[in-house]
Amino acid sequence: MLIQRVVRDLVTSKRNFWLSAKALRVVEDHRGNLEVALDPIGTKPGDFVITIGVSAARIAAGNPKITTDLTIGGIIDHWNEERWRS
Amino acid sequence: MLIQRVVRDLVTSKRNFWLSAKALRVVEDHRGNLEVALDPIGTKPGDFVITIGVSAARIAAGNPKITTDLTIGGIIDHWNEERWRS
Amino acid sequence: MLIQRVVRDLVTSKRNFWLSAKALRVVEDHRGNLEVALDPIGTKPGDFVITIGVSAARIAAGNPKITTDLTIGGIIDHWNEERWRS
Amino acid sequence: MLIQRVVRDLVTSKRNFWLSAKALRVVEDHRGNLEVALDPIGTKPGDFVITIGVSAARIAAGNPKITTDLTIGGIIDHWNEERWRS
Amino acid sequence: MLIQRVVRDLVTSKRNFWLSAKALRVVEDHRGNLEVALDPIGTKPGDFVITIGVSAARIAAGNPKITTDLTIGGIIDHWNEERWRS
Repeated sequence: MLIQRVVRDLVTSKRNFWLSAKALRVVEDHRGNLEVALDPIGTKPGDFVITIGVSAARIAAGNPKITTDLTIGGIIDHWNEERWRS
Repeated sequence: MLIQRVVRDLVTSKRNFWLSAKALRVVEDHRGNLEVALDPIGTKPGDFVITIGVSAARIAAGNPKITTDLTIGGIIDHWNEERWRS
Repeated sequence: MLIQRVVRDLVTSKRNFWLSAKALRVVEDHRGNLEVALDPIGTKPGDFVITIGVSAARIAAGNPKITTDLTIGGIIDHWNEERWRS
Repeated sequence: MLIQRVVRDLVTSKRNFWLSAKALRVVEDHRGNLEVALDPIGTKPGDFVITIGVSAARIAAGNPKITTDLTIGGIIDHWNEERWRS
Repeated sequence: MLIQRVVRDLVTSKRNFWLSAKALRVVEDHRGNLEVALDPIGTKPGDFVITIGVSAARIAAGNPKITTDLTIGGIIDHWNEERWRS
């Protein structure tokens, strides 16, 4: 799993059927690279989260038909920017 | 999911059976790296899109037999080049 | 899918059972990084191709038991070196 | 599989159902990049481990419903920092 | 598939059940980055090999329950260091 930070919500149109009505968040890694993750748990901008990839992302979404390749799996307690690198 | 921009259509010959008659788009990331994505929703050059990878790409194509590893999952509203990096 | 160029054939010994008797090609990306792809369609050195990864690679091989993680999915028409980057 | 070193435990809230009550470790590679791995075998900070990715990570967790994409698969004997690069 | 070179054997303790009693090899790419691959065919240090990733790695291991994400799929004939880059 990756350690990423929630940046903002993402609004899309013509969205894939299985992603419709799901919360999508723009997340960044410690280098500022952006990705998009499904959020089944309710996070807010600034939260440090763990994100789950590959086929596990679909299961973590609550239904393996949901077409996500990145899903937020938890909010990390007591993390800060100094801890992004060992 | 990744944030990519549609560059152009892609024309191929001897195409794999399950990809035949499907729309393929060349997409780029914010560094200009090119990939090819299946487009089941109808996009045009310049659109900023989210793209779905791994096994979810096949499901997002509408049929898991479709042999794609990258499928366009939605058009991002109100995105611009300044937002490619946080 | 990736855009790669066929470099040469690959000859191996002690090959995995499900890969035996299959055509393998060395392919390169625009940086010259080499990978090995299964070729079910018949390509020749110099062809620009799209390659399919992850679980879709096995399906594109014509039989999901074929143990490939990269399979050539089509020959790109009218591509040239100037188009490797947008 | 990757060669990584266990850095510390990871405490999260609102954790995905199938990850709840599982031990998660922050692991680093030889460049200091951090990831999060499920630990089904019991490791401690400083251990050099092999980590298993993609769908194999779920199987290695003991139950393919466990939504991990990285699972510790063994502790490496007699490894040290000099061996991180060949 | 990747082109990698076998470096040495890997000895681990507390190994995951489905990996126990399997041969694991440390392999390197042309940049010297190290990974660990399951070896079902019998290779020795210095051999140039193709390695198979993602779900195909488990099938190449001879049993999809074997929790590997990288499996050696063949020994490359007539390869040398000059050929690592095109």
